[in-house]
Amino acid sequence: MSQSPFTNLVRPDIEMMLAEGDVDGMREVCEALYSGVVAEILEDMSPERAWDVFRHASPATQAELLSFFPLSFQMRLVEIIDRASLSKIIEEMPADDRVDLLGEMDADHFEAIMPLIAQAERAEIRKLLSYPEESAGSIMTTEYASLPAGIKVREALDKLRVQAPSRETIYYIYITDEERHLMGFLSLRKLIQAKPDTELAKLMDRDVIYVRVTDDQEDVANEIRRYDFIAIPVVDEQNRLVGIVTHDDAADVLADEATEDAHLAAGVQPLDESYIDTPFFVLAQKRALWLVVLLGAASATAQVLGWLESDGSHAWMVLFLPMVLASGGNAGSQSATLVIRALATEEVEGMVGWIAWREARIGACLGFILATLAGCVSFLMRGPWEAVVVASTVFSVVMFGTVVGAMLPLALKRFNQDPAIMSNPMIAALSDLMGVLIYYTAAAWLLTKVL
Amino acid sequence: MSQSPFTNLVRPDIEMMLAEGDVDGMREVCEALYSGVVAEILEDMSPERAWDVFRHASPATQAELLSFFPLSFQMRLVEIIDRASLSKIIEEMPADDRVDLLGEMDADHFEAIMPLIAQAERAEIRKLLSYPEESAGSIMTTEYASLPAGIKVREALDKLRVQAPSRETIYYIYITDEERHLMGFLSLRKLIQAKPDTELAKLMDRDVIYVRVTDDQEDVANEIRRYDFIAIPVVDEQNRLVGIVTHDDAADVLADEATEDAHLAAGVQPLDESYIDTPFFVLAQKRALWLVVLLGAASATAQVLGWLESDGSHAWMVLFLPMVLASGGNAGSQSATLVIRALATEEVEGMVGWIAWREARIGACLGFILATLAGCVSFLMRGPWEAVVVASTVFSVVMFGTVVGAMLPLALKRFNQDPAIMSNPMIAALSDLMGVLIYYTAAAWLLTKVL
Repeated sequence: MSQSPFTNLVRPDIEMMLAEGDVDGMREVCEALYSGVVAEILEDMSPERAWDVFRHASPATQAELLSFFPLSFQMRLVEIIDRASLSKIIEEMPADDRVDLLGEMDADHFEAIMPLIAQAERAEIRKLLSYPEESAGSIMTTEYASLPAGIKVREALDKLRVQAPSRETIYYIYITDEERHLMGFLSLRKLIQAKPDTELAKLMDRDVIYVRVTDDQEDVANEIRRYDFIAIPVVDEQNRLVGIVTHDDAADVLADEATEDAHLAAGVQPLDESYIDTPFFVLAQKRALWLVVLLGAASATAQVLGWLESDGSHAWMVLFLPMVLASGGNAGSQSATLVIRALATEEVEGMVGWIAWREARIGACLGFILATLAGCVSFLMRGPWEAVVVASTVFSVVMFGTVVGAMLPLALKRFNQDPAIMSNPMIAALSDLMGVLIYYTAAAWLLTKVL
Repeated sequence: MSQSPFTNLVRPDIEMMLAEGDVDGMREVCEALYSGVVAEILEDMSPERAWDVFRHASPATQAELLSFFPLSFQMRLVEIIDRASLSKIIEEMPADDRVDLLGEMDADHFEAIMPLIAQAERAEIRKLLSYPEESAGSIMTTEYASLPAGIKVREALDKLRVQAPSRETIYYIYITDEERHLMGFLSLRKLIQAKPDTELAKLMDRDVIYVRVTDDQEDVANEIRRYDFIAIPVVDEQNRLVGIVTHDDAADVLADEATEDAHLAAGVQPLDESYIDTPFFVLAQKRALWLVVLLGAASATAQVLGWLESDGSHAWMVLFLPMVLASGGNAGSQSATLVIRALATEEVEGMVGWIAWREARIGACLGFILATLAGCVSFLMRGPWEAVVVASTVFSVVMFGTVVGAMLPLALKRFNQDPAIMSNPMIAALSDLMGVLIYYTAAAWLLTKVL
């Protein structure tokens, strides 16, 4: 989809330079073009060929390129880049991307690389690696722009010019005291519009919206999205500024969480890598796990059916069994998905009663529609009493599926579990069990009474 | 989750000011605090009370607040704000948010408001409203910072200071010629680091990554996310700059699309509003639609079962029917979800053959595991030959579900349809029909041969 006139135009050029060993040309391409575009071209090559192209660039450009590659491609590059070059690249990488890469490395590689990295950077890396996974600390960068409150706009701009090359964003500037306590916030927009002699203390906003270093990354990303921020400051327990989370990392977190929720909803254990990069047996295992659990649930249903249907007197009932079970499972998946997604986008906290009541009414409404239709089908295929049995069962399982599908994710959220683990197939399995029970007891009882 | 010390602190203050009619206090609060925070407090009130608080603020602040409210709350406010105030607010709103609001209004309201808006703004609004839904044009803003190539850095900064208040972002600056053709791109970071006498033509990047006004909004949002941009320029057919799409709108698009895909996956027609704001009968209708379609599919399955099971000679088979059907449906949902999500994050274009082959092998692998387990369960509950029938059916439906679940979304994508419309319940319904066919024909045939 890229509309950059360069992506497809440059690809053959790079291929040719590589074939001809045109070192100057390859350096020129890497330095002159936007690294996002170059990375897109290089990641379609083998890691060896890609490195042959960008080994000629400056370490700063190499670091930028590496940050744009998917983590799996970075890992393959790490295997082939010599240690001296690699340590220089890692020193130049943005603090957050660097930590993502080092965190993925196996212990041997990590310990081989670390001594080659400058002392100060090393301390930084170990610090960032110490934050729990999926916390604000694990996705933040320490390269933020900060200034003291006492200086004037003119001096602030001079200081920013010096800070600029090494800061992930200079568009949001944080005002701190000597102990790095967060005092205020100033946008570069406001700064360049202000009179050169104004003191920053007079310009800055004092009601800074911040997150804590231990906050969940999904909450942080939602905060950035809600307020349309480019970045949000991260503070420690003593309210000292320790980093920022930027909008692009927030967008990646939200996309990853949406993917994780979608996978969980379909009963796939979340993948650590993309679908394409996940090895065959890892993928098979992540899928088999839930399928086996669900098969266990289906075995319970088989057992129950065995008890209830021991005399085989209502053989016709099997015809509508798939219909009864599918209706309950489908209605339940709908509710669960609507509630889980609403929880993920933070719309519905503290509305449990309201949701339960609405889902019950929706369930009744949907149950009525489906029961009527299922009744018609079974009337045409069998007869009036069979229609009553099928319709009353469909109504019951749709009600059951809808309410349980909505309530289980809310209950999980309440007990601080991820609501998304209540997958749709799981709700379908519960609804299957309940459907069989209702179909073969209550409804069958009704039939023996009247026939 | 908001860590702003103000959100919860300010709420009671505002309530008290409202009770005491403290106009100055309310104005002060609206003007001094970040509008995102104030909006969060106000949207928990009735529209009447909210307007009583922020009617005292300046039109610029009112416009900012309105932009932060969810569209449904904006619509309720529009009903009660007097036309004179409303037209002033709309003039001050960012071009993209304004068009979202006006696009939602009914014709009467729209025609009543439009004459009160300044002529130039009116033309602008009609132009933006004319872009197709879900296109780059429909989410872009026309308030971008642009400069000619021939001026120097000093002059550029002076011009930017003038442009700043009315531009959605001044951090990315687009260089255009007199006909607004996009010539180059410059970040404010680069601009403030440059020497005051440098000409912009020498500083700017000429390989600008842009999108077209008719491009799909999801592609545009993915582009912004891939390249970590704050904004991306939008050009018309003549390569003239007509607007920009900013990172915050891209994040909203991606979140909305993820929600839409999750809903479709569960067989819910996408909602126009949030789950909470969707009226009862609209929600019931969006859910009933697919449930009824799926019930139709289940009726076909019932019909097939009726033909196949007419003699009722294998009554025991009903016990494992839910297990057989659930296995195929669950395996199919997994494949479909993995492929649809990979397509949404743009990983897998042009890999159809590779995916089909991998899914076939995964299906065989999962089918083998589940068939073994299902065989054990049916052996214990019934006997060896029943186990052979159940296991061979489970293997076949899992294979079928896995391959069909992966292929249908890819086929839809190929024919330029939304792959997400192939919902998991739909794949489960197909797999149900196939499962019943396999179970009661091939497997039952096997049984009559050996028993």
